[in-house]
Parts: sequence; structure tokens; C-alpha cells
Amino acid sequence: MVTVIHSITIITLDENNAIFQGFVIIKGGTFQEVGSGYPSKKILDTADEVINGKGKWMMPGLVNTHGHLGSTYLRGAGDDIPLMNWLENVMWPAERRFTRETVLQAASLAILEMVKSGTTTFLDMYHLHMDNIAELVIESDMRAVLCRGMIGHCSDQEQEEKLLESIQLYHNFHGENDNKLTVALSPHAPYTCPPVFLEKVVDKAVENGMWIHTHVSETKKEVVDHIQKYGKRPVEHLNELGMFNVPCLIAHAVHVNDEELNILKEKGVSISHNPMSNLKLGSGIAPIPKMLDLNLSVSLGTDSTASNNNLDMFEELRIATLIQKGLHEDPTITSSEAYLRMATQYGAKSLQINNVGEIKENFIADFILIEPEVPHLLPWNEDRIISHIVYSMKGSDVTDSFVQGKQIMRNRELLQLDEEKILYEANCYLKS
Amino acid sequence: MVTVIHSITIITLDENNAIFQGFVIIKGGTFQEVGSGYPSKKILDTADEVINGKGKWMMPGLVNTHGHLGSTYLRGAGDDIPLMNWLENVMWPAERRFTRETVLQAASLAILEMVKSGTTTFLDMYHLHMDNIAELVIESDMRAVLCRGMIGHCSDQEQEEKLLESIQLYHNFHGENDNKLTVALSPHAPYTCPPVFLEKVVDKAVENGMWIHTHVSETKKEVVDHIQKYGKRPVEHLNELGMFNVPCLIAHAVHVNDEELNILKEKGVSISHNPMSNLKLGSGIAPIPKMLDLNLSVSLGTDSTASNNNLDMFEELRIATLIQKGLHEDPTITSSEAYLRMATQYGAKSLQINNVGEIKENFIADFILIEPEVPHLLPWNEDRIISHIVYSMKGSDVTDSFVQGKQIMRNRELLQLDEEKILYEANCYLKS
Repeated sequence: MVTVIHSITIITLDENNAIFQGFVIIKGGTFQEVGSGYPSKKILDTADEVINGKGKWMMPGLVNTHGHLGSTYLRGAGDDIPLMNWLENVMWPAERRFTRETVLQAASLAILEMVKSGTTTFLDMYHLHMDNIAELVIESDMRAVLCRGMIGHCSDQEQEEKLLESIQLYHNFHGENDNKLTVALSPHAPYTCPPVFLEKVVDKAVENGMWIHTHVSETKKEVVDHIQKYGKRPVEHLNELGMFNVPCLIAHAVHVNDEELNILKEKGVSISHNPMSNLKLGSGIAPIPKMLDLNLSVSLGTDSTASNNNLDMFEELRIATLIQKGLHEDPTITSSEAYLRMATQYGAKSLQINNVGEIKENFIADFILIEPEVPHLLPWNEDRIISHIVYSMKGSDVTDSFVQGKQIMRNRELLQLDEEKILYEANCYLKS
Repeated sequence: MVTVIHSITIITLDENNAIFQGFVIIKGGTFQEVGSGYPSKKILDTADEVINGKGKWMMPGLVNTHGHLGSTYLRGAGDDIPLMNWLENVMWPAERRFTRETVLQAASLAILEMVKSGTTTFLDMYHLHMDNIAELVIESDMRAVLCRGMIGHCSDQEQEEKLLESIQLYHNFHGENDNKLTVALSPHAPYTCPPVFLEKVVDKAVENGMWIHTHVSETKKEVVDHIQKYGKRPVEHLNELGMFNVPCLIAHAVHVNDEELNILKEKGVSISHNPMSNLKLGSGIAPIPKMLDLNLSVSLGTDSTASNNNLDMFEELRIATLIQKGLHEDPTITSSEAYLRMATQYGAKSLQINNVGEIKENFIADFILIEPEVPHLLPWNEDRIISHIVYSMKGSDVTDSFVQGKQIMRNRELLQLDEEKILYEANCYLKS
């Protein structure tokens, strides 16, 4: 299958940040050629599919490195209240009532929302029915990392069951769907997992060649409690337990000090920055400029709709850059280009995915098309495109989406999933 | 003309924050009846127009209390650079080249963007061709306050000319288009206007019964320079010049101390909070929770696309509430309902407009309809609607818009302005 897209403005996000009018040839899920100008007649004649992209922009799809799809139906349930009150009285009781069907319907809604707002890859950490979610993700044809979230404060037997489920998920689904689906290990957080359990997780990671994703230092209280309990800060603690000896992506890292940043740097640990969730729950604002100064690998995640409340990565990107400028009273402290890379290629790298996040020969063809003839993206020329994407674009400007060369949305209609059914079910949830 | 809209979920934003399924009867530009349930056959039979709002939400239109429409074509021109560099090397040189046509085309684009994202009322402060902008605004049928922005650092003659233009704008347009257009006086800022000019402006305001809009304490530097020059802070300075003896709306107020807040409270001065612009330019974050604790009248504005870079008030609202939660590490410090009122009724009040901002009998019928059957607003019920509006909704979810009972957008198409022409012109601007 050879697809040619021509007459389109290509935002490569390559090392030169090249932006030009041109064409791409996609074969076997990768970009075989990325050229400027118009393709030859021979190229057009031998293609299986030719798409005229006139007037549109093409850019790498967005990578959302932290979320919890199963709880999507909790969007808007209990805002503006303290975290523990929210967890204990809203989140946890609701999740206890979730059926397999609810989780799957909620995850479908999340996938629909993500595709419609330009995300092509996501990480999902959830504790319920991950095998079914894996099947759903395969059906959607998105690229994803799945991890069965494991709270370790439970009996030894339950710990073992959770680990077993994680490893089974890995054996059943890692590399499935032409390698679009991968599986990682996910202990929930240092404050919900005893050290002995975390060590077991590390052992399993080493044994199976897996990497680890976990929540770290989301709130100040967590850090204070951790110091009280273990006599050290969470990052130091995890490092001593050997967790950073395997590839690791930590979510949040809002309250990390300079020593912890140095450990993260030394160990090559990646960070998933979730600014909207961190703001909404009152957790705080992560020291992203410091992390970037240290050349740490920082990416962006939405967290779940229960604390965000949407999955629009363009909005996440915009808020990520704006809050740092305001907080530091310095407009130069963030650059639109660097933050856009956090939402694309740096995201893919932190999920251990190679060759994703640039429109470039031999890169995997995960990309989106954008309709820029809308009031909030005008006027535009090549000099202003990155600015418009970061500071003004909406997820709803994305018209088409491709993962590994395969189209998953065309003119804002999903091709793999039944959109109408997903909306109908979601609409029924609170009204039955 | 009697219009009935029925079978719709009405978000009243009245004193009880009532939300219910019902109908409205609009006559002479105001809500004659707002009722729950279904209207009688007699009501339906005698209406000139009947709209079935099944499945949709109706809420007051948004009020944007600070902007500069004429510079809309500068969207994305020079981001991530220091303020003075941006002003001196990007903004001002570009504005010097603006023709009457550019300003009008740019203002049309801004109006298009605002209507499409749910704004029904706005304030525009601009210094070029305001008479033409006034005619455009009348054509659009939006509600607006226009003010000819006046920088006072110029010759006495130029000062006089600017004041004369402002007064003429008032005489020509105040109360026009069935009172949808009003005119205020607008000295640019304390740092660009000498005291003697500000006193002249106050005299003119008193003489003509006008109110005043101005920029105050947007950056820390401004305040430091002001103290150095005048020996006092800007708010105290303006108060002593008598500016707050007339109704006054100040934009930004990022750097105001407790004494200044008390002056603003005592004098009943309103504040237009522009969070995205303040963040993007690195100006800082205004102390909104303190202002609300003092019962100050705070509203929301986008500022111009040159520093925002979009005019979506739903996004402005979301960021306004989120940044305070994050900054103060307290999720309870802002409430979605209070901030939504800032974007609606408090906005109208701060623009000296009465009976706008609630869906309520005898209130002016400025409202929007919303399509909630989109992934990011599901699932919903009446308990979650305010949360969805504040924390997840996009401007693009707005389908219909009415100002003073007259429809200005239907199914996302503007009825008064030529959308295609506006987009075409904007698209040509950087490409010719």
C-alpha cells in the first residue's frame, strides 16, 4: 500500500524545524519520501491512494504520556474540592461500582476524544479490565502503551495477582497490532506501594525486559509524608530501590528538588508533565524550565478527565508553556518549538517508541492533518505556524489522523470505531 | 417579533444558579418568560418563530471586557520575546503600516472569531479608525463598548485631537443600534499619559456622563517606574487625579498591593482580568482570589490576539480558574460558578450594561446555544453542566448566538457578516 499526500504544508519537527510546501510518500507504515514541491507523475501513477492536501497542514500526531482511560465517565464529578476528599468521596466509590462494560465504554469515549483532538499515541495506566482495553485499543488502531496500575498496599497474595496480571498483559499484548501496542509495568506510586513490592516490580521488569511507569511527587503532602515515613524524598527512595536502573517514566514530578533532578538526569528518567491536572487538583506547577535546562526528557500528558477535565493535548501544550512564562514573569523562559516537541517526539521517546514524532524519511507515519482556514489560525504563513499551533489551535481543527500509515480519522469521522454508539452510551450513563 | 425556544436545558446563571429543562419566550429583545417544562399550544401558535432546542444547552453569551480588534492580524507575530522588544520591534512598526482597510479586515476577523466562540458582548480599545470599526460592529449586531485608545505622550494639539475624536465617537455612536453600541473614554495607561492629560480626560468624562477604561499595572516594571517618577503607585496616582470618581474599568491589575485593592473597592472600580495575555507576555498572575474576597467586580478579557493568541473566552475562563488553584496549591480557592459569572454577568456590569448575563425574565436576550453531544462534554447531567462549561468546553461547541433577541449565528454560520470574505482577506494578508 503506497499513499501519496501532496500540495500540503509539512511541519516536519525535524532537527531543522523545516516547514515547507511538499508531499510525502508512505509505504509499509513509514515515510518513504518527504519532498518539497510537487511529486512526479510516475509517483502519482504508481500510488494506491493519492490525497490532495491543498491548504492543509501536516504535522506529527500528538503523544499523550499519562492518562487513565477507564475513569473517563467521571469527568466533572466533584470539582473544586480538596484532593483527598475528591479521591475518597468521589473517585474511589464511583470506581468501585464500575462494571467491565462501563470501563470499556468510558475508554472508548476517551479514545474518541483523543483522536478527535489530534492524539495518535497515548499511555494508559488503569487497574480494571486492561485486557479488554487492550482489545479496544487494537480495534481503534491507535498507538498505545498500556499498563495495569498496581497499588501495593494489599496482601501479598493480591500483590502477586496484580503482578501476574501485568505480566500476562505483557505476554498477551506487547508488540501486538504491528507493534502499535506495547505494555509496561506500573506500580501506582511510592506512597501506595511498600518498598518490598517496588523491588518485586523492578525484578519483574528486569526479568521480562519491561520498562516502568509510575506517579511521583504529585503533591507537597506526599513528599512530606514520605520523608516522615522513610527519612528521604521519593526520588532518592525509588533510586535506592533500583527502579531507575530500568527505563522509567514518572508522571507529575511537581515537587522535586535539585538533588532529585540530578538523580533523574543521571539515571535518564523521563517525566510526564500534566499541567492542567496539577493545576486543577491544586498540586502545584512542576519546575519544567529547570528540567529542560538539565536536558531531562520531558513530555506532556493529560491525566484523566476526572481531574483535567479534557484530553485535548493542544490545550495542555498551551497551558504548559503559558504558566511558566507567567509564573517566572519571563516570556522567554519557554519556547513554542521546544514545548511542541514535548507533545510529540519527546513523548514518543519517553514511551520507548523510536522513529515517531517527525515527518521525515524512515520515520513511522503517525501524523495529523489540520484545517487552518479558521478564524483563530488566521492570518498564517510558514513563520507563524508553530506559534499558531502552540498558542491558538484547537483540537477540533484536526481533520484527519494516521497511525503507522493507516488512516484512523477522515474529515473528522473515525474510521475504526463506532462514534455514534460511543456517544449514545456515554450520553445514557448519567441519565438512566 | 416573538421567538420561542423550547425543549432546551437552560443554564440561567440567576441568583439560584437554576438549571432546568424548559422554554423561553423572547419579545422586543428581552426574555418575556423563562419557564420549565413545555410551552402551551397558545404560546407556540402565536410565536413568529419557534425553535426546538432538543438536546442543547442555552446559557448567557460571554462578555469579553478587554481587547484590541484592530491588531488581530498580528496573531503569532513575535512570540516568546521580552515585552519591550515585542512592542518596539514587532507591534508598533506593524501598526504604523496598517491601512484603514487592514484595521477593518482585522476587526472583522476578530468579530468572527468571537461570535464563533460564544462571545456576544465585547469591549474594544483601539486607536485607529474607530468610526469605521463602529460601523462594522453595528453591521455585526454584536453588543459592544468602543473606546478610542489615547496615548497622552504627545503634543497638546495631538492630545486635543485624540480627545475630540473620542468625544465625537461618543456623539456619533453611543446608544446606536438599539443601544447595543456604547462608547467610553480610554486613556491608554498611567505610564503613557501625563497627569495633566488624565485630568482632562476625567473632566471630559464628567462633562459628557461617560465612563473610563484604561490599562493599569500590567507589569512589575511599570509600577517600579511609576513610583520612581511620581513617588506613588499607579492606583493611588489615578485616584488622586480623580479618575475613580467616574465609573472606571481597569484592565490587568496584575501588580496591585493591598492598599490599592482597598482603593479600588472603596471607589467601586471594576477589573478586567486577562490571564492568558498576562501569562504569555510574562507579566504575571493577578491576585484574583483577593479581589473576589473583597467583593471587587472582576470580569474576564482576552486582550488582543497579538498577545493571547486567541479570543476564545471559554479557554480564558478555564485558565483563569486553573492558574489560581495551581499557584495557591488549593483546589478550593476558585469555584467554577463564580468564574463563569465573571465571564458573563459581572462582565456586563463592569461595562455599565444592565440586565445582561442571566437567562431570566426582563433580562436582555443575549445568549448562546451549545451542542453538548461531543466527546469532551460527555457524560453530562444537570449537576455536571457548570463543570463541563468551565473545565472542558470549547468555543467551537457553540452553535447559535443571539444578541438582544436577534440571531447572529445559526448552526455555526454568521448571519450578519460575510464569513467567506473575512477568511479570504485574512488568508491573503501574509501571502500577497
